[in-house]
Amino acid sequence: MPYVNIKVTDEGVTPEQKAELISGTTELLQRVLNKNPETTVVVIDEVNTDNWGIGGEQVTHRRERGQ
Amino acid sequence: MPYVNIKVTDEGVTPEQKAELISGTTELLQRVLNKNPETTVVVIDEVNTDNWGIGGEQVTHRRERGQ
Amino acid sequence: MPYVNIKVTDEGVTPEQKAELISGTTELLQRVLNKNPETTVVVIDEVNTDNWGIGGEQVTHRRERGQ
Amino acid sequence: MPYVNIKVTDEGVTPEQKAELISGTTELLQRVLNKNPETTVVVIDEVNTDNWGIGGEQVTHRRERGQ
Amino acid sequence: MPYVNIKVTDEGVTPEQKAELISGTTELLQRVLNKNPETTVVVIDEVNTDNWGIGGEQVTHRRERGQ
Amino acid sequence: MPYVNIKVTDEGVTPEQKAELISGTTELLQRVLNKNPETTVVVIDEVNTDNWGIGGEQVTHRRERGQ
Repeated sequence: MPYVNIKVTDEGVTPEQKAELISGTTELLQRVLNKNPETTVVVIDEVNTDNWGIGGEQVTHRRERGQ
Repeated sequence: MPYVNIKVTDEGVTPEQKAELISGTTELLQRVLNKNPETTVVVIDEVNTDNWGIGGEQVTHRRERGQ
Repeated sequence: MPYVNIKVTDEGVTPEQKAELISGTTELLQRVLNKNPETTVVVIDEVNTDNWGIGGEQVTHRRERGQ
Repeated sequence: MPYVNIKVTDEGVTPEQKAELISGTTELLQRVLNKNPETTVVVIDEVNTDNWGIGGEQVTHRRERGQ
Repeated sequence: MPYVNIKVTDEGVTPEQKAELISGTTELLQRVLNKNPETTVVVIDEVNTDNWGIGGEQVTHRRERGQ
Repeated sequence: MPYVNIKVTDEGVTPEQKAELISGTTELLQRVLNKNPETTVVVIDEVNTDNWGIGGEQVTHRRERGQ
């Protein structure tokens, strides 16, 4: 029954990587808390680097500086 | 003043269906909790089936199996 | 499979009212989008009136003025 | 370490405006709560006006009436 | 830089289990997407069983029936 | 109409500080995007340090080391 929301920047996450995040998170909740995988929901949000800020600035700018 | 977030897969939800979800949710909160509809906010997120997991796998794969 | 999050202020919502919000939202998603109620998840967050702002001020202050 | 999520309608927010929201929010948290800007995360979601409801109706309809 | 939100029912999750969820999720994002663990944020929300619905009813009721 | 969610650790945030976060965020959205403060909603979540992870560990542990 858990609900997990994963937010990452939209920098080319592949369908296979998304599948790994979903199965990995679901297994983690089963292993640690014995949660039923059948009703574990995982939602991945991909966010534009213009819309993600850290350190007070857009990730877009950090990427331009090679960070 | 309530805030409601509805997340569904992006499988062809029409503007009319979105309007029904918004009015239905707003009425429900007015009826059950006497909340003022004027300040009730509803936000609908449509999520790609690759980005939605249940049972440890992507909805995309479940749809391919006809689930 | 939908996920719904309802946020309201923590002003005495009863368990019965929560049950009505959960069943009402689940039925709405079944009626409008034909979503399976068995995997529809609804999470209700009750928020202290000090922590909820509208119009630039805390709900606590609005309540003190009778709003 | 704070996490801030800002949701607005997708009505032409420019990259410069997003940058102002990110720096302004980060500074606010530093000034009020002495939070370290280096680990303050801000995520901006732009939502289609069909998917945003207030007063029980879509923002799209309110905009058509000039609201 | 990823942000992960894990919502589970508040049924006795221990601090050690929370630590495992945090380290496990952070490692998963490092392994799958090469994300820097130093800026990966994980927030766990524990939700009362009265406030969590699935299948149109409160988890409280399901637990009473032994589900 | 914007919706803002601010998550911080529950380390003694005062009602006055919450009021400042609410008014500051609302003013920022008015200044940058010309948003109507009357319908701007701000919700502050205070999260236990056991439930907040960064760098793969709980904030509780970082605080014990003086970080």
